[in-house]
Amino acid sequence: MEKKIFLSDKDMPKAWYNIQADLTTPLPPPLNPETDEPVTPDMLEAIFPMNLIEQEMSTERFITIPDEVMERLLMWRPTPLCRATALEKFLGTPAQIYYKNESVSPPGSHKPNTAIAQVYYNKVAGVKRLTTETGAGQWGSALSFACNQFGMELKVYMVRVSFNQKPYRRIMMETWGGKCVPSPSPDTAAGRKFLEGNPDHPGSLGMAISEAIEDAVTSENTKYSLGSVLNHVLLHQSVIGLEAQKQLASIGRYPDVVIGCAGGGSNFAGISFPFLRDKINGKEIRVIGSEPTSSPSLTKGRYVYDFGDTAGMTPLLPMYSIGHAFVPAPIHAGGLRYHGMAPLVSRVFADGLIEARSYNQIETFSAGLVFAQTEGFIPAPETNHAIACAIDEAKKAKEEGKEKVILFNFSGQGTIDLPSYDAFLSGKLQDYSMPEGEIEELLRELKKIS
Amino acid sequence: MEKKIFLSDKDMPKAWYNIQADLTTPLPPPLNPETDEPVTPDMLEAIFPMNLIEQEMSTERFITIPDEVMERLLMWRPTPLCRATALEKFLGTPAQIYYKNESVSPPGSHKPNTAIAQVYYNKVAGVKRLTTETGAGQWGSALSFACNQFGMELKVYMVRVSFNQKPYRRIMMETWGGKCVPSPSPDTAAGRKFLEGNPDHPGSLGMAISEAIEDAVTSENTKYSLGSVLNHVLLHQSVIGLEAQKQLASIGRYPDVVIGCAGGGSNFAGISFPFLRDKINGKEIRVIGSEPTSSPSLTKGRYVYDFGDTAGMTPLLPMYSIGHAFVPAPIHAGGLRYHGMAPLVSRVFADGLIEARSYNQIETFSAGLVFAQTEGFIPAPETNHAIACAIDEAKKAKEEGKEKVILFNFSGQGTIDLPSYDAFLSGKLQDYSMPEGEIEELLRELKKIS
Repeated sequence: MEKKIFLSDKDMPKAWYNIQADLTTPLPPPLNPETDEPVTPDMLEAIFPMNLIEQEMSTERFITIPDEVMERLLMWRPTPLCRATALEKFLGTPAQIYYKNESVSPPGSHKPNTAIAQVYYNKVAGVKRLTTETGAGQWGSALSFACNQFGMELKVYMVRVSFNQKPYRRIMMETWGGKCVPSPSPDTAAGRKFLEGNPDHPGSLGMAISEAIEDAVTSENTKYSLGSVLNHVLLHQSVIGLEAQKQLASIGRYPDVVIGCAGGGSNFAGISFPFLRDKINGKEIRVIGSEPTSSPSLTKGRYVYDFGDTAGMTPLLPMYSIGHAFVPAPIHAGGLRYHGMAPLVSRVFADGLIEARSYNQIETFSAGLVFAQTEGFIPAPETNHAIACAIDEAKKAKEEGKEKVILFNFSGQGTIDLPSYDAFLSGKLQDYSMPEGEIEELLRELKKIS
Repeated sequence: MEKKIFLSDKDMPKAWYNIQADLTTPLPPPLNPETDEPVTPDMLEAIFPMNLIEQEMSTERFITIPDEVMERLLMWRPTPLCRATALEKFLGTPAQIYYKNESVSPPGSHKPNTAIAQVYYNKVAGVKRLTTETGAGQWGSALSFACNQFGMELKVYMVRVSFNQKPYRRIMMETWGGKCVPSPSPDTAAGRKFLEGNPDHPGSLGMAISEAIEDAVTSENTKYSLGSVLNHVLLHQSVIGLEAQKQLASIGRYPDVVIGCAGGGSNFAGISFPFLRDKINGKEIRVIGSEPTSSPSLTKGRYVYDFGDTAGMTPLLPMYSIGHAFVPAPIHAGGLRYHGMAPLVSRVFADGLIEARSYNQIETFSAGLVFAQTEGFIPAPETNHAIACAIDEAKKAKEEGKEKVILFNFSGQGTIDLPSYDAFLSGKLQDYSMPEGEIEELLRELKKIS
């Protein structure tokens, strides 16, 4: 029995898998909030290059990975598939638990899978400079790494409170040559407006998005880049599941359950969509998205048309949401603090193809600690949500006496998040949940999708 | 051309390589400082278990890796061998540069290769608890991970100034269940004595060693563990070079130059000793140890009998040293701040089998930045010394128009060390070197070895 299954460079998938080709119900189009009409490609061109907009709307089943993207993905891909034998033993479960280790990339997460692709397509389209926002810094650092690889200029607007509290991510961005400023900043009209009211404004993801988009729209040869939610982002993450399929097949296994943590939805889609294709084609398999109780878009939200951002600047996206005005609790899993869920993930959820489950903060850290003390690797707080769910499934397998195969995505490593483990170990972590009434209020004016 | 060469679990080396079987000159024995007589095994038994003392003295060429150790090493080993194609292109060199990526282990360095083995042998010997010291925390965290794997209790004495400045490593140790206290501590007689003079004493590695050894000697079922320098530590690291040999052979390559950074000597020995065996058997190959100009034991030290620690508590070890009383400059490569060099590395250096080179701090960070901006991964400050040397060799290959094959050990990743990159990028790093006269003074009373 092997502990790890590697794929060689030549076994790396040659194309991304696009679930839009296999959806049982077509994806509702994004809408212009002023007219309620579908958004046309040219309306997105102010912020994205046309080649990525085409990918966003494509229904081709497979899209070839360009050579220059492949060359960079091979810096750390294919990632190892590992069998969590020590965790299985600890749980005394008959289940086999496998995890796909996406933490081996230079910035330590799955994020560069799409960062590399996005920077490449922007470069091909003649773009010279990108802007983005970042909260805790995972996305900003992945995009900085990718921009460095292609000689693309980058400016990251980082939520000021994180900029001050989490200098490691800022330094990582700068090490790869990216420029990172605290948001709100004096560099944009939106930022100056926020600063006028309060020169020490702590900022928010919504404000940082406003600044990054304004910068992209008003600067020469500049576009904007987003790290999750959109179809093309999920497309680029499909390499995770495609590799896992090959790796499991090489040892004669097929998963009974596939699990990913779900914030915007990209790592969850990455591990699960290639398996969902099998499910749509008749294969029996369960797929579970694991989210925080404090941002429960799938487990407590509704399928509505909502803004992708907090400030209401984006088109209306068809997604499970708890309302764009919702301010997520300050959990350590910063990457899961999002009010909505990617339209593609929302669609397959509405179609009953996937399940969802939510976990509170302390339970996820307990799961992460069990993982660190069995399998060794210290997970990112986001990843702890997938682990909590995998442990639950393994316990259920024990109760039922079933030898099921569980696969989850180990989306990121926790080194930079060690202070959150300190808080957990010293009993300072807090649980959060959301009263049902609050969600009804937040969603009241949004258009429901059936 | 593949970017990475993986070995499958079943191709993992089954035995460690012990260079003591192949030395051209026998290793001088450690001496009792009071009698100048060779140390006998029973004298070491107060701090080490007999099975490790036997390994320390063994001249068997190959020592089988026990199953329980193998099971843990397979958690992250075999580690990938990567071709630094982007770095080669940046340098415009005809050389092929390969690096062995030891940063993929749970604590992020090569250290757990020996930590796992040492904890296993202590457990087999009936030891219930280990003590150790740590400076920046790499070794303490690796040993904490290993102790957790075998259910062994651990107490780490961490130099107080590092304990306060580098909380991430302390949290990592605690996440794996290790106990970590700032040294000097009130828990030992030695610690109390230091604290008497100054309750806020910043501590030093020498003091922390004194505390850890006192604790081991005076506590029940407790032994002491060391992360470098000793023969058995270097033995356990030989998996690095053994794997690299297999990986290079699988693509029909053999290195012209093998490079490792050298502090205590264990990662350097790990990557190079299996190749030195070939050299002793007639193969043409160059092996280079790369050290800081501020702790230049090989490049400026002398081959003498010196204490392994600062306080003079250990036996006298036959090593290249700049004197145990030397206080290394506060460079960020904490793992290289050591006055001596492992006896086995010193022996092969005295025999002319290896070369040594020293690099100043700023040059090593420049090399690390080039690496991060080409190959993506951000190296540990120690590793930057190996990279600086590899870059020099690649440039020389360019000048000479030679297609040579360069192999170096990527001993650790730099996430926890990001503040040192911040200092570098903002121009705050400093260079250090050592005046020749100072070394003469420090070595004056030590016994020379011919």
